[in-house]
Amino acid sequence: MDELTAESQGNGTLVESVMATIRHRIAARILTPGARLPSIRAFAKTMQVSKSTVVDAYERLAAEGDIRSRPGSGYYAAGPIAPLSLAEIGPRLDRAVDPLWVSRQSLEAGEDVLKPGCGWLPASWMPEAGLRRALRTLARADNVSLTDYGTPLGLPALRHLLSRRMAGHGIEASPDQIVLTESGTQAIDLLCRFLIEPGDPVLVDDPCYFNFHALLRAHRAKVVSVPYTPSGPDIAEFAQALAEHRPRLYITNSALHNPTGAILSPVTAHRLLKLAEQSDLTIIEDDIFADFEHTPAARLAAFDGLNRVIHIGSFSKTLSASIRCGFIAAPRRWVEGLTDLKIATTFGGGRLAAELVLTLLRDGLYRKHMDLLRARLSRAMVDTSARLRAIGITPWIDQPAGMFLWCSLPEGMDAADIARRALSANIVLAPGNAFSLSRSASRFMRFNVAQTGDERIFRVLEEAMARRD
Amino acid sequence: MDELTAESQGNGTLVESVMATIRHRIAARILTPGARLPSIRAFAKTMQVSKSTVVDAYERLAAEGDIRSRPGSGYYAAGPIAPLSLAEIGPRLDRAVDPLWVSRQSLEAGEDVLKPGCGWLPASWMPEAGLRRALRTLARADNVSLTDYGTPLGLPALRHLLSRRMAGHGIEASPDQIVLTESGTQAIDLLCRFLIEPGDPVLVDDPCYFNFHALLRAHRAKVVSVPYTPSGPDIAEFAQALAEHRPRLYITNSALHNPTGAILSPVTAHRLLKLAEQSDLTIIEDDIFADFEHTPAARLAAFDGLNRVIHIGSFSKTLSASIRCGFIAAPRRWVEGLTDLKIATTFGGGRLAAELVLTLLRDGLYRKHMDLLRARLSRAMVDTSARLRAIGITPWIDQPAGMFLWCSLPEGMDAADIARRALSANIVLAPGNAFSLSRSASRFMRFNVAQTGDERIFRVLEEAMARRD
Repeated sequence: MDELTAESQGNGTLVESVMATIRHRIAARILTPGARLPSIRAFAKTMQVSKSTVVDAYERLAAEGDIRSRPGSGYYAAGPIAPLSLAEIGPRLDRAVDPLWVSRQSLEAGEDVLKPGCGWLPASWMPEAGLRRALRTLARADNVSLTDYGTPLGLPALRHLLSRRMAGHGIEASPDQIVLTESGTQAIDLLCRFLIEPGDPVLVDDPCYFNFHALLRAHRAKVVSVPYTPSGPDIAEFAQALAEHRPRLYITNSALHNPTGAILSPVTAHRLLKLAEQSDLTIIEDDIFADFEHTPAARLAAFDGLNRVIHIGSFSKTLSASIRCGFIAAPRRWVEGLTDLKIATTFGGGRLAAELVLTLLRDGLYRKHMDLLRARLSRAMVDTSARLRAIGITPWIDQPAGMFLWCSLPEGMDAADIARRALSANIVLAPGNAFSLSRSASRFMRFNVAQTGDERIFRVLEEAMARRD
Repeated sequence: MDELTAESQGNGTLVESVMATIRHRIAARILTPGARLPSIRAFAKTMQVSKSTVVDAYERLAAEGDIRSRPGSGYYAAGPIAPLSLAEIGPRLDRAVDPLWVSRQSLEAGEDVLKPGCGWLPASWMPEAGLRRALRTLARADNVSLTDYGTPLGLPALRHLLSRRMAGHGIEASPDQIVLTESGTQAIDLLCRFLIEPGDPVLVDDPCYFNFHALLRAHRAKVVSVPYTPSGPDIAEFAQALAEHRPRLYITNSALHNPTGAILSPVTAHRLLKLAEQSDLTIIEDDIFADFEHTPAARLAAFDGLNRVIHIGSFSKTLSASIRCGFIAAPRRWVEGLTDLKIATTFGGGRLAAELVLTLLRDGLYRKHMDLLRARLSRAMVDTSARLRAIGITPWIDQPAGMFLWCSLPEGMDAADIARRALSANIVLAPGNAFSLSRSASRFMRFNVAQTGDERIFRVLEEAMARRD
């Protein structure tokens, strides 16, 4: 053993002893680069010193570059390269409820795989004729549009159009407060880089869109979740989480909440904003399902006037996920800094994608497409609800707008279990705990009603239901 | 004054006194959220305690969430939100040599602005006919290509084609080692997130592409630079930097170095890789100018066999900067983790952009376009060199391939000064120090020979030359 007993030494020397011990272990390759150091509690016991002595030693070693601290995860021996592994940040998850695994299964699925668990519409539901026409229109555009970088904020004509569209939802965002991004996900990613640092507490809904978990893990945020009710986050729990964790940021959907399809009520929105103001909380309102709603929901950004709420959107769900284009409407004071960060990390944005989206939105076809899409989704919602109810799977909200139906399974059933079995039949499901930080949704499942047209899906679900007896 | 004199107190109490003082200042809003704390040296003097006492106090306050440490930048009062400001990381720069400012001037430039300092070709030099044809071809593609997310690694057919193209440069990268990204910049950004942590030392060339500085600032890396010679980095200085700073990563261009147009020699490449191996250094080789070279240069990735070298590229410089598509060829052991991070931060990649690039590369036109482009650039290189020499501006390398001519100004001239003056005449120049971490290139300027066709550019330069007498 290389530990030093250091009972009779002064505090400074104790800290140095602990430091020397760790350095020896690194030099002797007992701790290889990237290896995790003993926990503070355990090492204090080993070294027979107080925990605060170990804390001091670790902090000094980190300051001197011998070890690295990963907020929320511990200390690691420094070394040449120990790449970030999302799988290692946070607890190890059952693969079936690992958000990254669910994403990858859906994105990798070939033509023969059914995806009632995925978060997008089938290709045949998208405005194919409009897309083809927009591409032909673009083939005649000026050559600067075809070949040059986008401007720092992104295509001015599209930002003007987005500004007018947001006004329709009561959100006042002038075009120079709008920053185009490569996608909705990239918009949130850029904002996280701008607003938070490793270890910062961030609030999300429980359940919430599963990629929020993966994204926040990549930022090494300390994720805290608040239960979601059919009218928004549980306000009492929200207030408690604010007091307890002092989060800097809350990420949510107001209009059509993913995965539940719930809609934020005006009274909850008002209370939320009051709490946010009291504790100086910033909110990202991800509104990518805006155009699916039947009746306009309360928008936090509308109530707040883009003061502490940042509004984001994209067209991946309504036009095309193949054309990458999203946007951020931000408080004016942050636009300059966000744009600098956008240039540093992506240089020019996707000008061609922005031109395509602009062409499609200007086309009268978009409104007609969305009318048809909403009607088609309503019918699919009715059908899927009825079929699921018939086998004992119960929607949490009765026929929500959009594509998602959040459902509970009968007592004693485990959604992850069913998801694993379904996968062997080439069906990707989305088990509840992939969306739930607290892992309290093991009896829930998210269905995409636009992807449930195939009989095999219900056969697999029926079999799972029958097996529980 | 709220400072406590604490001469007769024990060390533990001293640390606590310093902590209490900072907490009091935060509570009293003397230090507002996001405000920088006094430096350790200054505060030790103020408080009449040792520097290590202040270090201990700051570290504990950071551990308890009252303040935040920003590696390489100091300590800040914690608060709800103190957004990342790239301008505040690192020293304040003269605007004319601030890399972000040069990027923004170029990206924001309207039709009436001349951009001999920018890093891309004029729209009229790009393969316009091919682009229009590719868009019309895509308008007839299957609807999955038009509307669906890309697969996690990106379009398989494009990855196969890139694998064959790299083989032509001696780089063995199988398609499953290739990850498509939104651009070359986004490729490096993704890799930085994967490989480095805040405070990690990273090596770059001096001079190097200026956006590397901005990007690494965004990652809060500790940037260290090594002088670049006409055959690659100065090997003696490189070895010294490795010993002194123990960097984890080196980012460079091998084929056509930006901004100098230099080419890495095989002997330097070999020495570099030997050093990299000895100190377990990872290298990102940014090869986005590959197709401009006249004779094939040594590729680090070819010598190394994608073991510790990561190869990246894009088509922004040769096909279109409006279509965003780049790629990473990485060591096999890192592909899985990189892909997870790509999904978490961008979800599906830009499938449509990848389809467009594939269509363009498959088209026989691409080879013809590049042959013409190289010939046209050679002529522009000869012309621009002659005109610059005539007014006393001397190319560092005689007629390099590609679009960049790195030139020295006569003794006593300041490039930033000329750049500022040129801007008032609507001409964006690229002064040397924007590329130089050590700010040792004040007498250098990068010219893009494809953007120097306008007489006004030489008029402004001549005037600047005349003024020095």
